Amino acid sequence: MTWNTTNFDELPVYEKLVKLARNPFDLTALRAISPERINGYKASAAGFDLLFATQRLDDAVINGLQQLADQSDAVAQFLDMKRGAVMNRIDGHASEERQVLHTACRDIFIESPHHAEATGEAKQQLEKLNVFLAELDRGALVNEQGENFTDYVNIGIGGSDLGPRAIYHALSAYSLQNRRVHFISNVDPDDAAAVLKKLDLSRTLVGVVSKSGSTLETLTNEEIVRVAYAEAGLNPGNHFIAITGHSSPMDNPERYLRSFYMYDYIGGRYSVTSMVGAVMLGFALGYDAFIEILRGANDMDRAAEERDIRRNPALLLALLGIWNHNFLGHETVAVLPYSQALLRFPAHLQQCDMESNGKSVTRNGEKVSGLTGPIVWGEPGTNGQHAFYQLLHQGTTVVPAEFIGFRQSQFEEDLLLKGTTSQDKLVANLLAQALALATGKNDDNPNRFFSGNRPSTVLLSDKLTPYAMGGLLALYEAKIAFQGFIWNINSFDQEGVQLGKVLANRFLGHLNVLRQAGDIDREQHPESWAMLEAAGFFQED
Amino acid sequence: MTWNTTNFDELPVYEKLVKLARNPFDLTALRAISPERINGYKASAAGFDLLFATQRLDDAVINGLQQLADQSDAVAQFLDMKRGAVMNRIDGHASEERQVLHTACRDIFIESPHHAEATGEAKQQLEKLNVFLAELDRGALVNEQGENFTDYVNIGIGGSDLGPRAIYHALSAYSLQNRRVHFISNVDPDDAAAVLKKLDLSRTLVGVVSKSGSTLETLTNEEIVRVAYAEAGLNPGNHFIAITGHSSPMDNPERYLRSFYMYDYIGGRYSVTSMVGAVMLGFALGYDAFIEILRGANDMDRAAEERDIRRNPALLLALLGIWNHNFLGHETVAVLPYSQALLRFPAHLQQCDMESNGKSVTRNGEKVSGLTGPIVWGEPGTNGQHAFYQLLHQGTTVVPAEFIGFRQSQFEEDLLLKGTTSQDKLVANLLAQALALATGKNDDNPNRFFSGNRPSTVLLSDKLTPYAMGGLLALYEAKIAFQGFIWNINSFDQEGVQLGKVLANRFLGHLNVLRQAGDIDREQHPESWAMLEAAGFFQED
Repeated sequence: MTWNTTNFDELPVYEKLVKLARNPFDLTALRAISPERINGYKASAAGFDLLFATQRLDDAVINGLQQLADQSDAVAQFLDMKRGAVMNRIDGHASEERQVLHTACRDIFIESPHHAEATGEAKQQLEKLNVFLAELDRGALVNEQGENFTDYVNIGIGGSDLGPRAIYHALSAYSLQNRRVHFISNVDPDDAAAVLKKLDLSRTLVGVVSKSGSTLETLTNEEIVRVAYAEAGLNPGNHFIAITGHSSPMDNPERYLRSFYMYDYIGGRYSVTSMVGAVMLGFALGYDAFIEILRGANDMDRAAEERDIRRNPALLLALLGIWNHNFLGHETVAVLPYSQALLRFPAHLQQCDMESNGKSVTRNGEKVSGLTGPIVWGEPGTNGQHAFYQLLHQGTTVVPAEFIGFRQSQFEEDLLLKGTTSQDKLVANLLAQALALATGKNDDNPNRFFSGNRPSTVLLSDKLTPYAMGGLLALYEAKIAFQGFIWNINSFDQEGVQLGKVLANRFLGHLNVLRQAGDIDREQHPESWAMLEAAGFFQED
Repeated sequence: MTWNTTNFDELPVYEKLVKLARNPFDLTALRAISPERINGYKASAAGFDLLFATQRLDDAVINGLQQLADQSDAVAQFLDMKRGAVMNRIDGHASEERQVLHTACRDIFIESPHHAEATGEAKQQLEKLNVFLAELDRGALVNEQGENFTDYVNIGIGGSDLGPRAIYHALSAYSLQNRRVHFISNVDPDDAAAVLKKLDLSRTLVGVVSKSGSTLETLTNEEIVRVAYAEAGLNPGNHFIAITGHSSPMDNPERYLRSFYMYDYIGGRYSVTSMVGAVMLGFALGYDAFIEILRGANDMDRAAEERDIRRNPALLLALLGIWNHNFLGHETVAVLPYSQALLRFPAHLQQCDMESNGKSVTRNGEKVSGLTGPIVWGEPGTNGQHAFYQLLHQGTTVVPAEFIGFRQSQFEEDLLLKGTTSQDKLVANLLAQALALATGKNDDNPNRFFSGNRPSTVLLSDKLTPYAMGGLLALYEAKIAFQGFIWNINSFDQEGVQLGKVLANRFLGHLNVLRQAGDIDREQHPESWAMLEAAGFFQED
């Protein structure tokens, strides 16, 4: 390791920032948000502008945040990550001990990629995908009746669902003709039933996504869909595609039309730009569009190598988050896209951010002394303005906001009404919210008083294209990694999901015992047995 | 008014609860969650069981919470609300001065309803709807070609969108054959474009929902859809339905096939069971299913009249929320439905809760001294378990959780795998999460240690039917109202949304000025002008 793992609150600049946080910049003061401030507090890369004049900080804080990045070796760690350092580990304790190489999927445009082997593997899989998609396009690969495939069902959960689903929704305006994608994720049997109800299975491909080939929900749903194929007299082997680890139980040509590989060095929540997203998005949007996503992501990955936070929006966003969370004490962050296509993007970020940084142990194996990852939530604007924004403006809890917007629409089908287009109205509302939250408003009626000083960031790009989506995705991936580096936590494992699995199996054990009319494990685990009983779950069978 | 408006922290029991909160019940102690506790900490009504053994409280706290309800006259206020008291007001200041009568829509089953006039109006509208739906069913009302209508587009935003959308998704398993519903809400022009792309307009009804008949987003989207009808050579007057206030600008038979009325005494976020939800849900599910929603809501509304918190799940849920928020200091609450059909229910609750209780002023016009409404967020399980649950288990912020589950699936198409069905697995996971969050787990590896003592509630019903959905909706509506009564705030206005509207119009004014090559208002509002400039928004035209 070329970087240090000093704890966050032991970095030299920490106390300085604590002091500065006692008197944060007052956004409500007359002319506080001057044109100079607005134009000066801006960072740009990969087609995105990040405006942060409506944050509660001044030049002294910005300098402090730059020092925080420098002293924690944030960029050096990011580079080491790209080069294949084993970032996924806890010193002195059993841990995953893995490299973190999702950026390698995007280094395909670089002559000397940071990690040649991983980028080589990514290229191999892309080539395999290109061949597969070309076969679909020219009608070489068709169904039993010689018809083209029109639908694709993605079966996966967590990272194999949320990210791919968010990106598909974001870009479905660019779908190829007669290509639709559906998602089954939840072990809730109604999830599969509702999707199956509306499909012509004979013209459908089914992508099953699981690195280990053993995820409970995914295998259960795969089995449900296989049964539906059998009942329809169709051979799943002509329809099912495996996206899985090399030589996992799912890597089996007898059961799958094709296998595409995912690797241990890419965690689920960072896997959208690997084959996890590629096969589905390639089907829906075409191979070239997927490459554009990678290109946007790669451009943002490169900007994330900049030491100067004014030239590195991901690092700046990470530091603004730390300022609001650790120094100003705000527990949550709202991600508010002014784009209906980004409806599911906050749910992806919830996973990517909260599963990465919802940790209580440093990389040295010590209990952290302060706050780590915030609660991330959000819904699109302007919808949210007619809903929870009431609390953002006048509630007793301050919620830092990250607005995301685009200057042009995707479909470019708009209407001029009262002198402005809908897209004008959309962006005007976005900017108005940032300003209103910051400045507040005095009023004699206490119920119409706005305290202001509620911080936000505005992130803008020209249009939500595949390229921009790649950039936005990589921006947040890098933001999350930077925050983990600075907090000195391991953002790449997820031990917190294990206990629930163990207990769920115990409950299922009870049900099995009960159905065999036994009563053995009741005494061993009285709480879980009693919960099943109180839940009225025993009367069902 | 028959109830008092004492401030929350001046109620006699307040200090007692503050003291009790210093040593909250330790859920991690050996056998702390005993079978007796699990069976005893349960409240039931309208087909729902609320299990709260995994909350951090004991009998002393429960008694204190009962006193809190009693001393704040919570149930008396709820009854007064039902009877037509002007609950939507701020004493001594200009305010909406309205009654709050969403429950009257559900009192149609009662011989002497609490507010005869409002219930009478609800019945009138229902009768009109019944006639309309019967015409559709028997083919008396058809399109220009004599074909049945198969699709319905709901144009509305906020309360005219989130609640109806959530309930439609929740119950679409019960849709009538060849009836589908789509939603357009956002002023983002891509929202309308994406929906229009997939429709056969000739067989589509369009419901436009706006009480005032003047909501910017809704009128804009209506105009976009009207233009699409005109371009398709169809007469919107044969397809468009108005759901609006009596004699609003939209109440115009020349432009709409039918008008259904909404009333000032029902706020947008409480309007799902009025015509706002009724017309769309009646089209999709049939009239009888909608009446079942009302019946479930009414049964829960009646349970909400119970003084004893053990027999009033809505009041109990409100008090548990206050215990976690005001006394234990947790800023957020996660609503986690173990039902994919409830995917959008948390977004509805975000509006209903945060717009109602995100307030800083008491009903006496004073600044509140403590916390009011929490941040509400959530996504379905088991999906969330593979995403943000990491933070719930091991993060530095404690998030109280409200789990919602059902013993049976909707489609009842399930698969027995390894001895259990998917529905078994779903509910086993729900219960396991509640237990895991509460008990935690010791481990020598600090990264595999779970601190526990993370509180949750489990809400269970047999099956997500229209009746159960009505009950669940009313449960949360009543919970939110109870919390507002106890905090002594007005949960029924939304002054916090006004400032953003004013500023958005200012930004739009700049754009108009600019497009006419003028420069007049630049000096008047340098900040908003500079924000538009920094956002790169001027180069577009």
